Amino acid sequence: MTVKTGREYVESIRKRKIQVYLLGEKLEHPVDHPIIRPSINSVAVTYDIASDQDHVDVATATSHLTGERINRFTHMHRSTLDLVKKVKLLRLLGQKTGICFQRCVGMDSLNALSCVTFDMDQKLGTTYYKRFVDFLKYVQENDLVCCGAMTDPKGDRSLKPSEQADPDLYLRIIEQRDEGIVVRGSKVHQTGAVNSHEVIAMPTRTLRKGDRDYAVSFAIPSDTEGLIYIYGRQSCDLRKLEGVEIDLGNARYSGQEAMIIFDDVFVPWERVFMAGEYEFAWSLVNTFSAYHRQSYGGCKAGVGDVLIGAAATIAEYNGVAGASHIRDKIVEMNHLNETLYACGLACSAEGCKTPSGTYLVNILLSNICKQNVTRFPYEIVRLAQDIAGGLVTTLPSEKDLRNPETKNYITKYLKGEKEAPTESRLRILRLIENISMGLGAVGYQVESMHGAGSPQAQRIMIEREINIDSKKKLAKYLSGIAG
Amino acid sequence: MTVKTGREYVESIRKRKIQVYLLGEKLEHPVDHPIIRPSINSVAVTYDIASDQDHVDVATATSHLTGERINRFTHMHRSTLDLVKKVKLLRLLGQKTGICFQRCVGMDSLNALSCVTFDMDQKLGTTYYKRFVDFLKYVQENDLVCCGAMTDPKGDRSLKPSEQADPDLYLRIIEQRDEGIVVRGSKVHQTGAVNSHEVIAMPTRTLRKGDRDYAVSFAIPSDTEGLIYIYGRQSCDLRKLEGVEIDLGNARYSGQEAMIIFDDVFVPWERVFMAGEYEFAWSLVNTFSAYHRQSYGGCKAGVGDVLIGAAATIAEYNGVAGASHIRDKIVEMNHLNETLYACGLACSAEGCKTPSGTYLVNILLSNICKQNVTRFPYEIVRLAQDIAGGLVTTLPSEKDLRNPETKNYITKYLKGEKEAPTESRLRILRLIENISMGLGAVGYQVESMHGAGSPQAQRIMIEREINIDSKKKLAKYLSGIAG
Amino acid sequence: MTVKTGREYVESIRKRKIQVYLLGEKLEHPVDHPIIRPSINSVAVTYDIASDQDHVDVATATSHLTGERINRFTHMHRSTLDLVKKVKLLRLLGQKTGICFQRCVGMDSLNALSCVTFDMDQKLGTTYYKRFVDFLKYVQENDLVCCGAMTDPKGDRSLKPSEQADPDLYLRIIEQRDEGIVVRGSKVHQTGAVNSHEVIAMPTRTLRKGDRDYAVSFAIPSDTEGLIYIYGRQSCDLRKLEGVEIDLGNARYSGQEAMIIFDDVFVPWERVFMAGEYEFAWSLVNTFSAYHRQSYGGCKAGVGDVLIGAAATIAEYNGVAGASHIRDKIVEMNHLNETLYACGLACSAEGCKTPSGTYLVNILLSNICKQNVTRFPYEIVRLAQDIAGGLVTTLPSEKDLRNPETKNYITKYLKGEKEAPTESRLRILRLIENISMGLGAVGYQVESMHGAGSPQAQRIMIEREINIDSKKKLAKYLSGIAG
Amino acid sequence: MTVKTGREYVESIRKRKIQVYLLGEKLEHPVDHPIIRPSINSVAVTYDIASDQDHVDVATATSHLTGERINRFTHMHRSTLDLVKKVKLLRLLGQKTGICFQRCVGMDSLNALSCVTFDMDQKLGTTYYKRFVDFLKYVQENDLVCCGAMTDPKGDRSLKPSEQADPDLYLRIIEQRDEGIVVRGSKVHQTGAVNSHEVIAMPTRTLRKGDRDYAVSFAIPSDTEGLIYIYGRQSCDLRKLEGVEIDLGNARYSGQEAMIIFDDVFVPWERVFMAGEYEFAWSLVNTFSAYHRQSYGGCKAGVGDVLIGAAATIAEYNGVAGASHIRDKIVEMNHLNETLYACGLACSAEGCKTPSGTYLVNILLSNICKQNVTRFPYEIVRLAQDIAGGLVTTLPSEKDLRNPETKNYITKYLKGEKEAPTESRLRILRLIENISMGLGAVGYQVESMHGAGSPQAQRIMIEREINIDSKKKLAKYLSGIAG
Repeated sequence: MTVKTGREYVESIRKRKIQVYLLGEKLEHPVDHPIIRPSINSVAVTYDIASDQDHVDVATATSHLTGERINRFTHMHRSTLDLVKKVKLLRLLGQKTGICFQRCVGMDSLNALSCVTFDMDQKLGTTYYKRFVDFLKYVQENDLVCCGAMTDPKGDRSLKPSEQADPDLYLRIIEQRDEGIVVRGSKVHQTGAVNSHEVIAMPTRTLRKGDRDYAVSFAIPSDTEGLIYIYGRQSCDLRKLEGVEIDLGNARYSGQEAMIIFDDVFVPWERVFMAGEYEFAWSLVNTFSAYHRQSYGGCKAGVGDVLIGAAATIAEYNGVAGASHIRDKIVEMNHLNETLYACGLACSAEGCKTPSGTYLVNILLSNICKQNVTRFPYEIVRLAQDIAGGLVTTLPSEKDLRNPETKNYITKYLKGEKEAPTESRLRILRLIENISMGLGAVGYQVESMHGAGSPQAQRIMIEREINIDSKKKLAKYLSGIAG
Repeated sequence: MTVKTGREYVESIRKRKIQVYLLGEKLEHPVDHPIIRPSINSVAVTYDIASDQDHVDVATATSHLTGERINRFTHMHRSTLDLVKKVKLLRLLGQKTGICFQRCVGMDSLNALSCVTFDMDQKLGTTYYKRFVDFLKYVQENDLVCCGAMTDPKGDRSLKPSEQADPDLYLRIIEQRDEGIVVRGSKVHQTGAVNSHEVIAMPTRTLRKGDRDYAVSFAIPSDTEGLIYIYGRQSCDLRKLEGVEIDLGNARYSGQEAMIIFDDVFVPWERVFMAGEYEFAWSLVNTFSAYHRQSYGGCKAGVGDVLIGAAATIAEYNGVAGASHIRDKIVEMNHLNETLYACGLACSAEGCKTPSGTYLVNILLSNICKQNVTRFPYEIVRLAQDIAGGLVTTLPSEKDLRNPETKNYITKYLKGEKEAPTESRLRILRLIENISMGLGAVGYQVESMHGAGSPQAQRIMIEREINIDSKKKLAKYLSGIAG
Repeated sequence: MTVKTGREYVESIRKRKIQVYLLGEKLEHPVDHPIIRPSINSVAVTYDIASDQDHVDVATATSHLTGERINRFTHMHRSTLDLVKKVKLLRLLGQKTGICFQRCVGMDSLNALSCVTFDMDQKLGTTYYKRFVDFLKYVQENDLVCCGAMTDPKGDRSLKPSEQADPDLYLRIIEQRDEGIVVRGSKVHQTGAVNSHEVIAMPTRTLRKGDRDYAVSFAIPSDTEGLIYIYGRQSCDLRKLEGVEIDLGNARYSGQEAMIIFDDVFVPWERVFMAGEYEFAWSLVNTFSAYHRQSYGGCKAGVGDVLIGAAATIAEYNGVAGASHIRDKIVEMNHLNETLYACGLACSAEGCKTPSGTYLVNILLSNICKQNVTRFPYEIVRLAQDIAGGLVTTLPSEKDLRNPETKNYITKYLKGEKEAPTESRLRILRLIENISMGLGAVGYQVESMHGAGSPQAQRIMIEREINIDSKKKLAKYLSGIAG
Repeated sequence: MTVKTGREYVESIRKRKIQVYLLGEKLEHPVDHPIIRPSINSVAVTYDIASDQDHVDVATATSHLTGERINRFTHMHRSTLDLVKKVKLLRLLGQKTGICFQRCVGMDSLNALSCVTFDMDQKLGTTYYKRFVDFLKYVQENDLVCCGAMTDPKGDRSLKPSEQADPDLYLRIIEQRDEGIVVRGSKVHQTGAVNSHEVIAMPTRTLRKGDRDYAVSFAIPSDTEGLIYIYGRQSCDLRKLEGVEIDLGNARYSGQEAMIIFDDVFVPWERVFMAGEYEFAWSLVNTFSAYHRQSYGGCKAGVGDVLIGAAATIAEYNGVAGASHIRDKIVEMNHLNETLYACGLACSAEGCKTPSGTYLVNILLSNICKQNVTRFPYEIVRLAQDIAGGLVTTLPSEKDLRNPETKNYITKYLKGEKEAPTESRLRILRLIENISMGLGAVGYQVESMHGAGSPQAQRIMIEREINIDSKKKLAKYLSGIAG
């Protein structure tokens, strides 16, 4: 049995010698830093849920390699049902954490690599798939968190990697040795990077012949020499240093993004999954993106549930739960949220088997899913702020609530409906602030927009996948145009 | 083998002695009336497709009653895969006809009755399910079109059936006899009514004790004595009498709605499926609606494909197919259209088995599906009109194109891109007119809005199904509210 | 006193010898043709209102040329108040006719020509402004309707006029003579063309040196030799031939668009306002468009009022006027409609004096106005159809209501709220059908989209007018970027 | 000359003995507190602009009381042009500060009181208007900032003031004395409260007979005994304590909201403008709201300009300024932003004179304006985040940029287009973060939603103002319904 607990996970990452910078300082103990710890707590939930009897069916799976029960986050999808269960698991975890729990990128990277390394071997006679399977077994047996590192800094986006003023603005191989390769570059906004055991690098875009050195994929431990992490600051991050709880909105959990610097890092051959095969870069990007665009139909719907619940709760505390316009807004929030989920389910149910045996989502529908994710959470937030009322951004601080000179004023004057304690009202308003403009907004808004590719990236894929010629034929036939 | 062809279908309905009024006249030969015939052609496609080897898997099924291959429109869903195939079949037929093909209501009525009559028998000890199964066998063996007659005129919508000034504004039992019941009332906007073999009546709303007589469901042949059909006129219907083709946009196919008058109609007991059990009215309405709200995720996406194809074609004819804003609008049309389809698939894949053995869609998600259908087709139409240009409503008539005095002017001055014949341009513009404001708009817009229940009906169901308390709990937990 | 009545107007256009083709026939008496007459009635209202004491302030003005009281449609705007009154007049006429009353294009053409011919004379030493003023006096003194003819057929839109396979796809000068010019080409979707006294031609786009012959503007009587009109057919046009009233929805009034063919038409020099000055083509297009984009903030808001009123009436007849979701939808319709009006007012109030003395609207804000007009009427229609219910497209015909065999069924079963006669309910539903998919939809939807330029044309203008550099400076300053 | 400078303003408020609590502490020197000071800087700009020769026309006016040149923020609108200039002034200040500059509420309160106290005196024979004019002169002569204090905490919103469990949840008179009144209660989310010289209290809703004690309006110095301010915390407020600049996004300026506690405060009669006249409460609320809903058409458009400029700048830095989808999104942002402005202008241009001589905006159109403000800024933010890219929430901190160990990594890897310094890119991204989820989002989002009344409040007003009966008449007339 290879399923670990959250506690075991935390201890396992504490052992790493990882180089992390945050707010101008190098951290001695990143795992216990108050800004970082809540993001680790979120990952830990992805472990604990695998031992939760209520959820064992969605949270675990049987390894097709070992036959062992494993955490679903390390599983290769072997059926459309697996794809559907993934979406359900992510929604559940979004509900439980109210935030990004950071483990999907790794899962999606593993599944994408399983498809593409298989294809590479078939077409090129390489042995990448075998290497990948060895790595996958290691991950499953040790129940590891993988950081999927795809997004390069990109520099001037109108230029290709090799055209940039600085050739390092996309991660690249700077040296090939007998034992392995040396890479230099960076990956940006890496979700959960500091909380991961392994970093899986992949290219971020289509590559041409001249960009051969940029066609590189590999996996290395997160504390490999030369890896440096610079922590991304988030809206309201400093409140975690204030020693308060209410004002955090969601005190237990948060998300995480970081820049990873690859300062001439050595990677042994057995961990290299692509090294120069530029013609497969697009396939890897596209496959990963398809999986990851599906993911958002789950996790964002789960966070949406939390925000909807918060809106319904504050409506009750404000004494307006029965007002028809409030009820209608809550229906609308749910409508939008369930539309996201429906798209996540649909691209899963319509998935298909790839030559590797791993199931891939329907690419068109997973892009449809993500495109909606770039829109609806914003409208859900707008409605939540509408229902919450202005207090969501004008509340006094928790410290003022604790200050004996002001406590009574706050308690008296911010009382809502008579059954609702003032403090509860403050708590739920802070949760709405968290998701709509604080720590949670990072994941619920900007990540919804840009994670798994910016909206224009989906539109390009949609244009490719819609088979417009077949639709033109339908129209010509019905309108009586011959031929 | 019980699968008929379109031709056989047409002959079979020609034999009926049906009472149809249209434009102030009683029709001798409704099947050959130029306003009606295109709507019959649409239904005929639902027959022909069942013999089309490319589509036999989605278009037919194996009867669980007889083991025979049957048209899927007469099939009881025995799995979630059946539900998914239904959506795919409807999209395909929407693509082939560009219009409402009128056969879903009957299919959805049959499936709803199979669930609810089974439940009634279980709870009340009645024998409705057996009667229903006998009827179903008859339908399957003869491959019949059923009109699902649910919507009563409703009169003053703020009043219950028994409160109306005229008690007949909801269909009701006016007499019970030994051999059967006599019913009086009307059903309005009945899709495909005149083209059906059988009429299946059902209640249209929740009923209370005092509305017992309104709790009535049954099936009767469409030419039963006392049934009178008054044909609903549609936008641009008179063009079908003009002897033209181009100006129809879609000359082969159209849709159909009619009022049915039940002028004291006798129904024998073996065809009665509900007679007074008011407490099951809601269940029947709700089950039917769930199925029918799913349907629109298929058929409307199919019509959407036609409109998208038409928009892409006119863009090409106008010489602007490559303009970035045009391409972006076509992507947006597809995005919206595929979102509808995704919702249709999702509620199917998440379906579940009812006690009767018939599979029912996920009710929440099918309501989400329909709610989107009340919005997106309108936006797709708006974008189509944007791409089409003003000619879509200022084109001269086909007769002017045929008139030697004006033919050359039109041919010369309405020429677009040099490869596109002027006539083709006119044809495709007329198809866009058809779907956006002509015959097709009836099905693509107003039916999208009100068919299977008006938008507010879905919002009521969404509110019921979302389990807001569980969401409140999530929010309270994360914000630290105890209890 | 030069203000005519509607009756005088009708008699004046009856005298013309105009060549009109409609539905494959050349018309002897276009003024009395049942398809055309309602559109003439709409224009006539623009005359009658000028004698209506309630509206004399908005409907008339004092000529700056003659000091006479004139119909505002022939007036040059001499102040921002004139611009505001124009918008109010158009809203009023939209309310009174529920349709396009066809007289704005001429008004906007005259005002645009007054600005641009003045500028041409200043810069080129020409005498166009003097010619224009003579023509304007003639128009004012005889209270004439002018058709503003701008939109060329355009052929392949990716090509310039001189690049087209057929050089006539944009109107052009084919010969210059001592006494005048000869022009060939066509103008399409010409609003009110058949109902006008004069046709004012203008170029439709920016022109370069090689397109010199296409830089042509002039005014000629609508029955000039060589002018041929081919009537544009509209959704539901044939109902006007049916001898019915209710089914028309709006029986008195309709709109009109026609193709005009210029079959080698001679124009004397005193009526020529541009002949080769290609560098002013853009200015004329842009000035006209600015005025015409303002217009829609008035007329479409007026038609919107009618549709809102119809929706509120049918809600009452259906017995649901008090339902919160219905009330909210009516508020939303009004909100959108008033936003259009607000934009029309704003671009007027921010207008400025041009060198000619004529006031021009604020160009950015008039483009904003029109851009909203390409969106909101569609949403208002969607909401109207939502409120109306499915009957809006499934009603039996008026002839069935008149048929003694079906009259009682219809009267009985389509009764709504008890105070509302069934016939009134049918009438209001037909009006909603008219504006949402019938005759009125031509003006309220497609004309809203493409009249005064398609949406992309406004976006191009918005991009030009926003001064993005000044906004970048604001952002750089606040974020602390030096320089 | 009574126009002060920003510096004079700051000195004047430094002298007050005001009781302010922030983050659990009572402040000794609120004016110099790093969290508060930027909000004071914003107010100071409203002073400095009055001496700026470029803006003197919009920023100042001539007092109708004294004939002196005064800051427009203390002026009574004497024409529609004054109303228009107000909107232009607010847009200008939004552009200059990128945030809420807090001075509109006072201006709108003064204008509302001038209208309503005049009416009260006319109808009741009171002398409130005279008292008000004396106060206004004092404000104008000393160029004071007034805090308009309207919003009560409201407790259970389904209950009236006198029905609340705690009678103090709406501000009320607890005692009437010969020299004045004593009031108790609180006002919440008071914009700029701590930065004001005077506090003007007004009721927040319609009041009935039983709520007489709640009908109270007055003005008192902000450091009056018994007034206590508890500072509202804002998203990212702690960054102001970090000693950084870039990470603030907009380091100079911020907004401010605070709770004001009225702990049994005495108000002398000469400063009382309403005391028990409950029947005028609605009029005061409604008049104030109309002015304040107009305001947002100016200030939010100004902040919108900043965000648009930031988006255009980051597009340039990212090397994508020319991409068609980016350009289109910037056009869309402008389109929405100018629509807000157009509504602000329209309600001003359509203003009218009240009996007091003060001009009031058009109430319907000012509600339309605000309703759009509750929507469009959210969409503008969404588009800004789309254009910005994911870095907007994953950037390392300024301290990491300053840390020699990480500085080079950040500078190297976050470089964009080659002409743009990395630091500039960071600055503009932080400004976008500020407005979209940080300090600026408080004003640009939640204040846009709830300031001047929540969206439902506008919908109620829209429903009242639209004269639906006149619209029904239009529809009935055109559809041929008699009477």
